[in-house]
Amino acid sequence: MHSTSELQDIIKKAFNPASFAHEPFELYEPIIYTVDLGGKRLRPLLVLFGCDLFGGNIEKALPAAIAIELFHNFTLLHDDIMDRAPLRRGKETVYRKWNTSVAILSGDTMFALACEYISQVDPDVLPLALSEFTHTARLVCEGQQYDMSFEIRKVVSINDYIEMIRLKTAVLIGCSLRLGAILAKAPPDDTAAIYSFGENIGLAFQLQDDLLDVFGNEQKFGKEIGGDILSGKKTFLLLKAYEIASPGERSELDQCFSDRSMPGKEKITRVKKVYQSLMIREITLDKIEKYFSKGLQSLDNIHTDEDSKKILVSFANELLKRDF
Amino acid sequence: MHSTSELQDIIKKAFNPASFAHEPFELYEPIIYTVDLGGKRLRPLLVLFGCDLFGGNIEKALPAAIAIELFHNFTLLHDDIMDRAPLRRGKETVYRKWNTSVAILSGDTMFALACEYISQVDPDVLPLALSEFTHTARLVCEGQQYDMSFEIRKVVSINDYIEMIRLKTAVLIGCSLRLGAILAKAPPDDTAAIYSFGENIGLAFQLQDDLLDVFGNEQKFGKEIGGDILSGKKTFLLLKAYEIASPGERSELDQCFSDRSMPGKEKITRVKKVYQSLMIREITLDKIEKYFSKGLQSLDNIHTDEDSKKILVSFANELLKRDF
Repeated sequence: MHSTSELQDIIKKAFNPASFAHEPFELYEPIIYTVDLGGKRLRPLLVLFGCDLFGGNIEKALPAAIAIELFHNFTLLHDDIMDRAPLRRGKETVYRKWNTSVAILSGDTMFALACEYISQVDPDVLPLALSEFTHTARLVCEGQQYDMSFEIRKVVSINDYIEMIRLKTAVLIGCSLRLGAILAKAPPDDTAAIYSFGENIGLAFQLQDDLLDVFGNEQKFGKEIGGDILSGKKTFLLLKAYEIASPGERSELDQCFSDRSMPGKEKITRVKKVYQSLMIREITLDKIEKYFSKGLQSLDNIHTDEDSKKILVSFANELLKRDF
Repeated sequence: MHSTSELQDIIKKAFNPASFAHEPFELYEPIIYTVDLGGKRLRPLLVLFGCDLFGGNIEKALPAAIAIELFHNFTLLHDDIMDRAPLRRGKETVYRKWNTSVAILSGDTMFALACEYISQVDPDVLPLALSEFTHTARLVCEGQQYDMSFEIRKVVSINDYIEMIRLKTAVLIGCSLRLGAILAKAPPDDTAAIYSFGENIGLAFQLQDDLLDVFGNEQKFGKEIGGDILSGKKTFLLLKAYEIASPGERSELDQCFSDRSMPGKEKITRVKKVYQSLMIREITLDKIEKYFSKGLQSLDNIHTDEDSKKILVSFANELLKRDF
């Protein structure tokens, strides 16, 4: 198997912004800007991992890897409009830098481009690869809808929340790995197992993101701490806290989330205090560990040599090892 | 070959709104609403025409026909946001009835659904069908971008305008027919010829729409006359008028389009008067006829029996025969 850094080099070359420069410039400029923002390129790396693990040809998997990243960036572009997000990776979001129409249409074009890249995969694996990709694309849209609906819905269960982050985040992680495996002509049992690995690591990853938003180190996390508390987002942490809170703690949370005049800093401090008394940090870490182990267990069912699997394990460890 | 009404019946059954009812309801309700609005279902009919003409299996072409119509409806949904259109087919547009976020996300989901339908075509024709569809999807986005850019660009040539309507409207007409032909395994010469037929008929159709917007019969046209004049849209009619106008006529047009206090009715009357003195109606009809004939000529190059072609000819005649 190739090393992670070898694969990252291949991906870096593939995302040369010049290859996305077409006419009309007004349409492709925001696409180049988005591609240029970079990011971890996690999903294309997973496509190549999935392919490499089953002895597939990395070069031939590259169009699918590009497709997945373009699709992911398209969802971010549209999500930023819906969430009114001012910044993405420290820079102005497309709808702020240009306008909503530009962000809608450039996003649509990125989705179309992603589909064009998928159409380049080997004809014998195309039917399976395409249905994997297109079905996942729709699930991700469903996840975003649940995320928006939960903002206004009063009662959201923890199961609802897990299902939402599964659709919005985890299925694309699973799909990236399975897509690579499909291109390498891995048998269905193996592609299902690697999907399950990705899906569970994806759930763990999103829960960790929720945790870091409250208990993270601001510099290492890369964004302001407490954002989810300030916006009243119904994360696993908040839903769990409500589930196990005493009547007194519940009314303290109610007050924090209903009193609009409460200063942000005070709100964060008071909610965190409830979380601490309820051991929410420990409960969340436990949940993360559960999904992480479940993901690793899925790897046991894959029929490849153990050394190759180790790259995936160390990758997952790397992904989930963030200082608190 | 099947008759037009037989094919229309098949399409009507395929667009049973219930088949688009999934969870979450908030996401799929606007999709069902859009599918329910109906419309002429022109593009899916063309997919089936293209398939039938070359002896393909209509049932097997149905997923591609659905894909094209869903894609077309997705573009309308997003265009309506960008154009701030209040009505579509006499009913509230999705972004007005719900909101912009709903219209963006439901549109994205329709695009994903369209791709899922395409993935259902026979594996042996999938690579060609998919690249036809995805490349066209991107061209349509480019067309919409040119349309928006022309609103603010001062100088737009007639060639620029024709290229814009080609991308925004005509290529999807061509693609629909070629997609059907690809599914029927027609040879490349024939698929190119039927594409050219569709592209030229599409251009004629759009120019006719521009003409009807000024000289149409309000009841038969189905929307208010003069909309393009009121919005100052740079259509073929306006661009041609500027090209051949005398200095006096040019300043009359300039005044109509710069004087914001001029009542709408007066504006329409005065611009129409310039058009009439410049024979813009006749020049446009001549241009429509040119594209129409060019489209029909393309049919001559297709290797099928003449009777089958007649259905396409009478369809094109029907499409372009609207009372003035």
